[in-house]
Amino acid sequence: MSAQGGGTRSWWGWGNLEDAVTGAERKALIGRVAALLPDAELVDHRPPDIGELGVGAPRVAAPASLDRLCSDDPADRVGHARGKAFRDVVRNLLGEVGEVPDLVVRPRGERDVVDVLDWCARAGIAVIPYGGGSSVVGGVEPRDTGQVISLDLGELADVIEVDTAARAARIQAGIFGPALEDRLRPHGLTLRHFPQSFEFSTLGGWLATRSGGHYATVLTHIDDLVESLRVVTPAGVSESLRLPGSGAGPSPDRLFLGSEGTLGIITEAWMRLQARPRRRAGASVLFTRYDDAVTATRALAQSGLNPANCRLLDPMEALLNAGTDSPGGVLVLGFESADHPVEAALERALELCRDHGGSPQPPRARNASDTWRTAFLRMPYQRDALAAHGMIVETFETACTWGAFPALREAVLSAAREAMRAAGAQGVVTCRFTHVYPDGPAPYFGVYASGRWGSTVAQWDEIKTAVSDALSANSATITHHHAVGRDHRPWYDRQRPDPFAAALHAVKSTLDPSGILNPGVLLDPRR
Amino acid sequence: MSAQGGGTRSWWGWGNLEDAVTGAERKALIGRVAALLPDAELVDHRPPDIGELGVGAPRVAAPASLDRLCSDDPADRVGHARGKAFRDVVRNLLGEVGEVPDLVVRPRGERDVVDVLDWCARAGIAVIPYGGGSSVVGGVEPRDTGQVISLDLGELADVIEVDTAARAARIQAGIFGPALEDRLRPHGLTLRHFPQSFEFSTLGGWLATRSGGHYATVLTHIDDLVESLRVVTPAGVSESLRLPGSGAGPSPDRLFLGSEGTLGIITEAWMRLQARPRRRAGASVLFTRYDDAVTATRALAQSGLNPANCRLLDPMEALLNAGTDSPGGVLVLGFESADHPVEAALERALELCRDHGGSPQPPRARNASDTWRTAFLRMPYQRDALAAHGMIVETFETACTWGAFPALREAVLSAAREAMRAAGAQGVVTCRFTHVYPDGPAPYFGVYASGRWGSTVAQWDEIKTAVSDALSANSATITHHHAVGRDHRPWYDRQRPDPFAAALHAVKSTLDPSGILNPGVLLDPRR
Repeated sequence: MSAQGGGTRSWWGWGNLEDAVTGAERKALIGRVAALLPDAELVDHRPPDIGELGVGAPRVAAPASLDRLCSDDPADRVGHARGKAFRDVVRNLLGEVGEVPDLVVRPRGERDVVDVLDWCARAGIAVIPYGGGSSVVGGVEPRDTGQVISLDLGELADVIEVDTAARAARIQAGIFGPALEDRLRPHGLTLRHFPQSFEFSTLGGWLATRSGGHYATVLTHIDDLVESLRVVTPAGVSESLRLPGSGAGPSPDRLFLGSEGTLGIITEAWMRLQARPRRRAGASVLFTRYDDAVTATRALAQSGLNPANCRLLDPMEALLNAGTDSPGGVLVLGFESADHPVEAALERALELCRDHGGSPQPPRARNASDTWRTAFLRMPYQRDALAAHGMIVETFETACTWGAFPALREAVLSAAREAMRAAGAQGVVTCRFTHVYPDGPAPYFGVYASGRWGSTVAQWDEIKTAVSDALSANSATITHHHAVGRDHRPWYDRQRPDPFAAALHAVKSTLDPSGILNPGVLLDPRR
Repeated sequence: MSAQGGGTRSWWGWGNLEDAVTGAERKALIGRVAALLPDAELVDHRPPDIGELGVGAPRVAAPASLDRLCSDDPADRVGHARGKAFRDVVRNLLGEVGEVPDLVVRPRGERDVVDVLDWCARAGIAVIPYGGGSSVVGGVEPRDTGQVISLDLGELADVIEVDTAARAARIQAGIFGPALEDRLRPHGLTLRHFPQSFEFSTLGGWLATRSGGHYATVLTHIDDLVESLRVVTPAGVSESLRLPGSGAGPSPDRLFLGSEGTLGIITEAWMRLQARPRRRAGASVLFTRYDDAVTATRALAQSGLNPANCRLLDPMEALLNAGTDSPGGVLVLGFESADHPVEAALERALELCRDHGGSPQPPRARNASDTWRTAFLRMPYQRDALAAHGMIVETFETACTWGAFPALREAVLSAAREAMRAAGAQGVVTCRFTHVYPDGPAPYFGVYASGRWGSTVAQWDEIKTAVSDALSANSATITHHHAVGRDHRPWYDRQRPDPFAAALHAVKSTLDPSGILNPGVLLDPRR
């Protein structure tokens, strides 16, 4: 995994240009898709030059005191104009950059953040906080926003203090995953939060969006790893005490976790760390019936064994992304510990799987776990290559109770297939569990469909609406860890209890009275 | 443990009259105190008759439609006038009942709750939600409140639905601990939330106060067991989706958890349950140095072994409440599982303890664990007996990081001793960890001091102020699981970040625009 710092970021697609899918890998990928979807067009398209995009001049000028923080470079501004969803990448490839931030502003300290917010509040300029820009829900995209800056926290990237006794560190929000781990490694510590975006996302982004990480059980969200938060709001700086636990009123941190830049700018956090694991055990388990696989996974999720990895791939996901042909799918299991052996836990887990018809694969061999992990890290790059070939490739995710899952999956698959048919897109839908809880799974769906170049965004939007409606109709959450952003608003609004929506509006009006912070995310912008 | 339903509730003290400390137990208890504190007065005092208390007539009358829910019985009203803190019990014994709710109102369904809030909002009558009334922080006590009703949720005590696949149940808020467990037992399930108040507190109370329960690690607070909440606010009913996890905006549930009746009335919740444990292993470990015991406990908390019980008693706590004379204190350890053996986890835990100088006690014998558990359940009753004998007996609790703990403990012990000296009270202070986290412990302190009858509340208030200031000065939370109520307000206000305080005020104004809900708790009452 190359560090974010070590490459040239793509303005239009995922990650670093140097890591793009090219040559033989690209050819093989397209070949596999051609075999799966023989009617697909699969014509390669290349991104336009930035000079061709017609980016207008900035409509705002920073006060002289803040000028040193500001970039009006078109490439910089275009690179901050949206996230990295399929629809973002395709619009970039088509040269449809839409609204672009007037300036990219890079504060060098918290005082700068305060000053920038003061300026923007006075001038009525919208502020979109920007970490790694890996949003897949329109979280960093100006949309009917007017004058707007992108507030890139990338210069606030220090690990300020490490408390080895408490295994915690005070970390600035703009640090990227690899740099953070590099800084913690000498202490024998790790945050162990590895979202798929790990290389190209920041601590602040994870916190603002309640991202889901490495652990399939227990510590599933970044929320659980937070000891305290420091947040700059237009109404003042909020800093919570460093506490391992508290019962003093509603949690202040939980208000800002998931606030997606609408209530304040998270500038730093004390995060709970882990010792680096020294013991590991893992296995893959094949099933002949998917229902059995789900029941086995549920038994495991309720066993208290707490595997670090517990990823059930359905048959299509297993085939496409783990190269495993198994009619009931494959369960990828992993245990880890810095303290004690984990073989007994794995053995008991496999026993539970066998009780439900599972066939553990011989260990030690390069198995589905390894294959899948490699594929996992390449997925966003492959997504870009496929998108450039006119494919519709996107994911969405949710969580529901175990009892609700079978009907939910049927509803989602059926809605996706129907929508693909209506949109004239031939394709497949995959499902895996990224996280599991005693009371239910977090299913993650993938869509791979042939599209019509120039229409794939509209085609995807139709599919996305259909599957989101299916989630909503089945009382599942619109997002388990991708966040709400602008794209999920209609379904989020349905899901959110009305009194809580009213409460959130009241908080917004209090902490951000000018309504400058990420307007349109979570809440309607003030007009 | 007798069920709450099976006895006669004491109006002035803890629990059921039938379970009070009497006869030989009372004599032995007082004898032990006399040996510890030879200067203590130890004269027994009895509660007054309710008829002597001079309870005034109610100042409000319910509308005819709600009359069937209302009680104006003086005993009922006095029984709802305050919680069960030491200062509550002593004031009751002294016949100083202070403000008494004008009516006790017992809704029989959620519609009644809505109607009562409508009436009170229109009439400007304060509403104090009441579960089991076990608050030790002035959470249910009218204080300079004016017209006020106590809204007793005790009739909303049903388990409405059990989802055995998800191991979850939809439960009404007014159910008491034993009744809840009785209802879950036939399903092989348990909430496994056993605060010390278990017999005399309710689900709704636990949720509103973020109570701490059975598990010393991981699932320490009731917060973690919540799947969804239903809350009646004056601005409408809020109901969150049943979700095992979500990342859709800030958590709605986390706003109501810990809101202590100030934002709405929790009427029901879907709660995550556990299978009843079948495997158990436990031990006690003695230490010669307390510092070593703390280090061992930290190692355990960071090991990922996740003991269900991990209670470090300091030497004085071990002596007084576990009958164990150990210069470095005693660590009480317990592991449990419904799925797999736990002996290996215990063995590894004991190994960690030995590494830090611990001496595991021979298992199987009736050891410190058992002694301590029995004492735990009798403590509130003994507290009442001691309070009636002019003793000052009270607890307070906090949480802090491991690095902060030694100085915090010193500061608290020193502040308590100094305050006792200043108040002319001879006594001792004990400390135990009720819960432990990878980043720090939740220390729980006990004060046992001789007081002057008639002045013990004032004496305690001086001690409480001193120790709370010490917590505050050491950046520890004013409460880990006792809640804020009215008594902890000054220190809570210091601890709470100002922008969050402003946000909470805004939420309060939106959800409870008339300011009728539990005025004075968490926030200043509206005047």
